[in-house]
Amino acid sequence: MTTPWHREDSRHPDAVGPDLVDPARLPPHDDVDWRTDTASLDAHRFDRSGWTPDVRPAVVASVRGVAGVQHVARHAHRTGTPLVARGAGTGLTGAATAVDGGIVLDLTGLNRVVDILPADELALVEPGVLTADLDRAAARHGLRYAPDPASVEISTIGGNIATNAGGLRCAKYGVTRDAVLGLDVVLADGRLIHTGRRAIKGVTGYDLTSLFVGSEGTLGVIVGATLRLRPIPVATATLSGYFPDAEAAFAAVGAVRAAGIVPAVAEFIDGPTLERIDEHLGTDLRARGAAFVLLQTDGAAAEQEAATAAGVLRGRATSLEVTTDPAEAARLTAVRRAALPALERVGRVLIEDIGVPRSRLPEAVAAVRDAAAATGTSIHTFAHAADGNLHPIIVLSAEQELTDPDVQAAADAVFRAALRLGGTVSGEHGVGALKRRWMRAELGEDVDALQRQIKDVFDPTGILNPGKAV
Amino acid sequence: MTTPWHREDSRHPDAVGPDLVDPARLPPHDDVDWRTDTASLDAHRFDRSGWTPDVRPAVVASVRGVAGVQHVARHAHRTGTPLVARGAGTGLTGAATAVDGGIVLDLTGLNRVVDILPADELALVEPGVLTADLDRAAARHGLRYAPDPASVEISTIGGNIATNAGGLRCAKYGVTRDAVLGLDVVLADGRLIHTGRRAIKGVTGYDLTSLFVGSEGTLGVIVGATLRLRPIPVATATLSGYFPDAEAAFAAVGAVRAAGIVPAVAEFIDGPTLERIDEHLGTDLRARGAAFVLLQTDGAAAEQEAATAAGVLRGRATSLEVTTDPAEAARLTAVRRAALPALERVGRVLIEDIGVPRSRLPEAVAAVRDAAAATGTSIHTFAHAADGNLHPIIVLSAEQELTDPDVQAAADAVFRAALRLGGTVSGEHGVGALKRRWMRAELGEDVDALQRQIKDVFDPTGILNPGKAV
Repeated sequence: MTTPWHREDSRHPDAVGPDLVDPARLPPHDDVDWRTDTASLDAHRFDRSGWTPDVRPAVVASVRGVAGVQHVARHAHRTGTPLVARGAGTGLTGAATAVDGGIVLDLTGLNRVVDILPADELALVEPGVLTADLDRAAARHGLRYAPDPASVEISTIGGNIATNAGGLRCAKYGVTRDAVLGLDVVLADGRLIHTGRRAIKGVTGYDLTSLFVGSEGTLGVIVGATLRLRPIPVATATLSGYFPDAEAAFAAVGAVRAAGIVPAVAEFIDGPTLERIDEHLGTDLRARGAAFVLLQTDGAAAEQEAATAAGVLRGRATSLEVTTDPAEAARLTAVRRAALPALERVGRVLIEDIGVPRSRLPEAVAAVRDAAAATGTSIHTFAHAADGNLHPIIVLSAEQELTDPDVQAAADAVFRAALRLGGTVSGEHGVGALKRRWMRAELGEDVDALQRQIKDVFDPTGILNPGKAV
Repeated sequence: MTTPWHREDSRHPDAVGPDLVDPARLPPHDDVDWRTDTASLDAHRFDRSGWTPDVRPAVVASVRGVAGVQHVARHAHRTGTPLVARGAGTGLTGAATAVDGGIVLDLTGLNRVVDILPADELALVEPGVLTADLDRAAARHGLRYAPDPASVEISTIGGNIATNAGGLRCAKYGVTRDAVLGLDVVLADGRLIHTGRRAIKGVTGYDLTSLFVGSEGTLGVIVGATLRLRPIPVATATLSGYFPDAEAAFAAVGAVRAAGIVPAVAEFIDGPTLERIDEHLGTDLRARGAAFVLLQTDGAAAEQEAATAAGVLRGRATSLEVTTDPAEAARLTAVRRAALPALERVGRVLIEDIGVPRSRLPEAVAAVRDAAAATGTSIHTFAHAADGNLHPIIVLSAEQELTDPDVQAAADAVFRAALRLGGTVSGEHGVGALKRRWMRAELGEDVDALQRQIKDVFDPTGILNPGKAV
């Protein structure tokens, strides 16, 4: 990592510098375990992007309370040491990877669902809570936490907020940002601030809550969140359809929306991925069609809307199933859940994540296909169709590394297509260490400069997750 | 206005200063009409808050295109002149009121719905479009623009975005921020930037779109917006209920939500307001109960959900009506629409706007009642109940001005109650010139300081709407 992560002239006069890793110089605190053993350091170098930086942190600080986070931040601030906040490390863009000689702040010990307020439909949580655990705690009150990234069982809510995670139900219920009403944030210098409120609406001051959501640990450390919950839908219906090609599949999803139906889930899988699933599960899905769509409707009209949707799809689909039976629904959704594991059997995967306006989805899929052909790489695609959010999955051959020029050329072609179609190089995974170059292409020079100035407001000495996102 | 609106040392060397109003010194541009006649200046001094500042702008710049906005911004920047962007002037907090010697930038000439993209469920608009006109343009494609502030027929979409306007349907469909995907913004120095994207989801870079939404013209001038539309619901059902008291009314709304129903509209009116409506319309509403609730359900299950809600309300309500007939629904909703006109007949009104967690609504209404009693003022309350957003309306007596100490003490007590209950001093109207002091009490010193630093990033010479919001 060649990015300078701080400015030498901003160092505190008491900076301990190279002595930081000397265990005798790490200031003790009841809520902090400073870990300098090799196993801890190595376990906190990488995320799930497939990329491991060629560096090692100086120390891992595992914290048990907000005071511990403030203590670690103050130490980082005083010593000018990079500070990388980290939850479960399940990110896909290298946002939580270690910085050379820095502190990794391990927030998994801050893992309490502090309160569920059923009458207010709110949850108060610490950042290290697994998102699925939050959802289960809400379910005991008939409520749910709507955003559901595929990583929901292994990722933390703090990481979800830091990356503005999406998921399958965004089509109807929005992304993480839409569920966050307020945040407790430890600033770079250790001060604790509160943004937002417990009221559903509020317009006093600039929207700092939205600014922190998706900021990937570069503006502050999220140590608490006030989250919106929603009633669990009284009913759910599931449709599974196969289509002659991607164009027909996306047109079908559009026709369902044009009929006034907002599905809770609208997932797409392409033909090559269906072939890998067949190899994995011993099924014959690809024989039913060259593109798969999974739809769910929910709420009191779930069954009625599913029937309407089925009427729209019939004639377009080569195969169609509709059910309100949970066991049957699980069988239909298993196809979608099998997509990534089926590809991972074939080789290491690079999971891309672009977004385009819904009407441009067929062009995006075609561009991905062209990128694969032009570079000789294997790319399989599935998508959150209602959001125009595609995941082109580059499956590496045994000889290929992430840094392979063909792989990079394929990714580059995919990103350029997204921008050409009026979209984004990251729909829901973030920018991290891996997409910064393309982010700048998307934002343009003026916006990029404004972002850096905002970063300077919150982190004047540049210690927070240097080399990431902004 | 004693707030210094710019820093002397930041003036451009070519600053024309006091010569600004000399018509010969106003730089001509095809897309700009510079107006210095008294009628124009006086017409652009005030908004609908009831407060008119004791100052006059130097000039009103009516623009026809983005290039015109850039031209005016460049002139303001070069001369260090305050620039107040303004739509229809229907704001309620003094955000668009004139600044002494400044330029009022009249954006009502930028009033095109540039495009409706039905397949993407997007609208591309200029800021001066009336929000209801946008909604009608969307309706021709079976779509609608969901946010519906009460001012929808007279306020512009640019003003709605600048204040993050709410409305009646927020309960189910969210506020203005939730409908804004991207913005075109002219910066203080005249540069044009673009934030966001046409894709539904996107996480590249800090969320500048949300930062501009609700920033009340203090960070830049919104000259274009990419907005989300939604399918028009296939059906709507309306319930109107009267209850023994406010507590019973709010408990009923809570019970409906606990039954898994998310109403599209959930409005509350208190007993004193019902009395004023009776006087206005010659009805006998107050005899039916001391608190009124209007509920709407929509979508394919509208009728079924209304029936479930009616089952929940029966036994709680002293009077209950349910209908799916549009004419009947119009009769029921007319009560809510009559609330403000009925109060305006009695005297000048100061429309307050606080938000609290839903479960604290009964306490908030009680606190408003106490504030009225303690100060001898007349306060009537209606509320967007599902959002915990109350509008306590202070009705001035013939002798009272807005600045009357009793009126100010009543408003102060209402704001303090909102903060004590974990809420906000502005649910959906903004901060403007009138709520800055209380905003600081809500945000705290550290957040207030961060906001000012963000303001400095976007507007280093402090020319954009000085003395407002931040």
